[in-house]
Amino acid sequence: MKDFQHISEKAQIGANVSIGFGVRIYDNVIIGANTSIGDHCVIGYPTKSPARAGKPVVIREHSLIRSHCVVYEGSDYGPQLETGHHVILREGTIAGTNLRVGNHSDIEGDCTIGDYCRFHGYAHVGKGSRIGNFVWLFSLTTLTNDPLPPSHLAVPVIIEDGAVLAVGATPLPGSHIGMGAFIGAGSQVRGKVPAGAVVLDGKVMFGVHRLSSLEHKIAHPWMSHFKDAFPEETWPRLEQLEKEVRAAALLIK
Amino acid sequence: MKDFQHISEKAQIGANVSIGFGVRIYDNVIIGANTSIGDHCVIGYPTKSPARAGKPVVIREHSLIRSHCVVYEGSDYGPQLETGHHVILREGTIAGTNLRVGNHSDIEGDCTIGDYCRFHGYAHVGKGSRIGNFVWLFSLTTLTNDPLPPSHLAVPVIIEDGAVLAVGATPLPGSHIGMGAFIGAGSQVRGKVPAGAVVLDGKVMFGVHRLSSLEHKIAHPWMSHFKDAFPEETWPRLEQLEKEVRAAALLIK
Amino acid sequence: MKDFQHISEKAQIGANVSIGFGVRIYDNVIIGANTSIGDHCVIGYPTKSPARAGKPVVIREHSLIRSHCVVYEGSDYGPQLETGHHVILREGTIAGTNLRVGNHSDIEGDCTIGDYCRFHGYAHVGKGSRIGNFVWLFSLTTLTNDPLPPSHLAVPVIIEDGAVLAVGATPLPGSHIGMGAFIGAGSQVRGKVPAGAVVLDGKVMFGVHRLSSLEHKIAHPWMSHFKDAFPEETWPRLEQLEKEVRAAALLIK
Repeated sequence: MKDFQHISEKAQIGANVSIGFGVRIYDNVIIGANTSIGDHCVIGYPTKSPARAGKPVVIREHSLIRSHCVVYEGSDYGPQLETGHHVILREGTIAGTNLRVGNHSDIEGDCTIGDYCRFHGYAHVGKGSRIGNFVWLFSLTTLTNDPLPPSHLAVPVIIEDGAVLAVGATPLPGSHIGMGAFIGAGSQVRGKVPAGAVVLDGKVMFGVHRLSSLEHKIAHPWMSHFKDAFPEETWPRLEQLEKEVRAAALLIK
Repeated sequence: MKDFQHISEKAQIGANVSIGFGVRIYDNVIIGANTSIGDHCVIGYPTKSPARAGKPVVIREHSLIRSHCVVYEGSDYGPQLETGHHVILREGTIAGTNLRVGNHSDIEGDCTIGDYCRFHGYAHVGKGSRIGNFVWLFSLTTLTNDPLPPSHLAVPVIIEDGAVLAVGATPLPGSHIGMGAFIGAGSQVRGKVPAGAVVLDGKVMFGVHRLSSLEHKIAHPWMSHFKDAFPEETWPRLEQLEKEVRAAALLIK
Repeated sequence: MKDFQHISEKAQIGANVSIGFGVRIYDNVIIGANTSIGDHCVIGYPTKSPARAGKPVVIREHSLIRSHCVVYEGSDYGPQLETGHHVILREGTIAGTNLRVGNHSDIEGDCTIGDYCRFHGYAHVGKGSRIGNFVWLFSLTTLTNDPLPPSHLAVPVIIEDGAVLAVGATPLPGSHIGMGAFIGAGSQVRGKVPAGAVVLDGKVMFGVHRLSSLEHKIAHPWMSHFKDAFPEETWPRLEQLEKEVRAAALLIK
């Protein structure tokens, strides 16, 4: 035996699950079939949160957790969860189907996340964030939650379906990003962003249909040219979302 | 034996210390009683710095080092050190009581850090930084130290007691942040920031007493409503600090 | 045996290679002599990229990979590669001599990187980036590549010899940073930056010769005072590069 694993006998592990070298699996863990847990991961890490402690983390079928990740007990992820390396997923989060989370990212707990979200590296999702379906968080996006730091206040960020946050975007506490909105690289966000709006340097500028590449003949809403990056079963949802985002975008300004 | 640890016989480990799965502890390590070292941590990692090599790292009683952390030899931390996951603490740092350091953070070495500091995730504390007591570094704050990069110059940042650096704040080399000052999200900081001042977009704007949440009826200095996040033994110090910060803030503009 | 390693018999490992505790080495790995692989590293991690899968990662002689790193199969690094902790190096990259990559950094794959580059912590090098020799990426620099995110477009960043990107600089997709240019802290970069130019807040301001420390009597080009941070064998190249950068800088404005 060369795998040097430390797997609790209380963990429930499905059929055809692959578990890497140096993996530790704690007690409160349920792993679905055909899932792969990478080397040096820690799954079911005990939380100090009284409301979440002792409750299972559910990682469903066909998931892929890459090496050196830490997944806390007391959360529930849909099928086909996929993480990069060195990702931290804390307790109390409920996520839909096929969430992907990039290297070195951190989901801080008590979040709700829809289906088919895509988070890139160093994304930091503050505690209690509420995120819809098909949401994109590019690298170094930070979802904050304390409006007067440090304090006991918690006013998490809300992000609606299909919104895109470019590299380094920082929604401030309580911001509410509408369906299919686009937040430019490095921009802060305050308050309510209308559906289909583009925010640059903190200001609503125009509708997303005006974000385009003339050279490549593509334009937002992104579902119009990037649907094929998702499984075919999602296409009707993406087509509907595209229509709604486009309609909303045309109303901006 | 399922713990697959690699612990030097030269390490001095106190009573009731819990050591996780896959932990490596090198020679120059002193760990106080009732401390917990998480899975896959590396403690006492050898430094190449001639001045620090071969000297112990001291992790005192009641500390909690979460998984996948790297703590170099040649440093000294006060009791109740608490780290997130994937944290790197380099050689030559001296820290006070109850330092907390968030996930994926990096303290680069030769720093002095006071008591009860709170650093969130991805905080990057440049080499030689000097940080007082009760200082808050929120996510992605970066304390730089080279004024003409790259060069052999090193002009570290100084941060006084009770100061708060919001998400993504970046003190530039040689900046000196006064007692209880507040640096806004994403702001760079140059030169000297007066005690009790608020800096937004790089500029001193007003005193911290004007940072408030009308809705929740709280205002800075933060010690006025957040003292209870610290142990009771610190309250007299926090009350004194609040008075001094308030007095300084009233002098701004 | 206390080292709990999992080393493929197919890996080719040179003389006098030191392999840490908890290291996993996969099949497609070639490690040169006198290299050190730190604790808990994963080397030769299998890629899903069809073009790269099954091809070796070559880590040459006198390299130092610190703990908790992940190096994918299908890449080729020159001698004296040095990484910090928790670094991720993906497939398809070709790098020259003595690349150094700081803690928590991420090189996303299919990049070309010249000799003697220096990347600090949390550097994120987007897929397909093309980086010359002696390039500096300070902490939190992010090299993007999708001009209309999310899309199938990939327009990577190009950075010429001797350029310096200060903390948090973000070259946008398709930007081309000329030889010896200097990008200020937190600045975005678009389009073409002339050789020897200083970019602050996204704008070309002046030539790098005007970046100086009067107090310390040093000025850019940085090679004029920082050559000695590199091995002596590089000095003729650095002297030549200094001349060319200086000549280009004098032409700005």
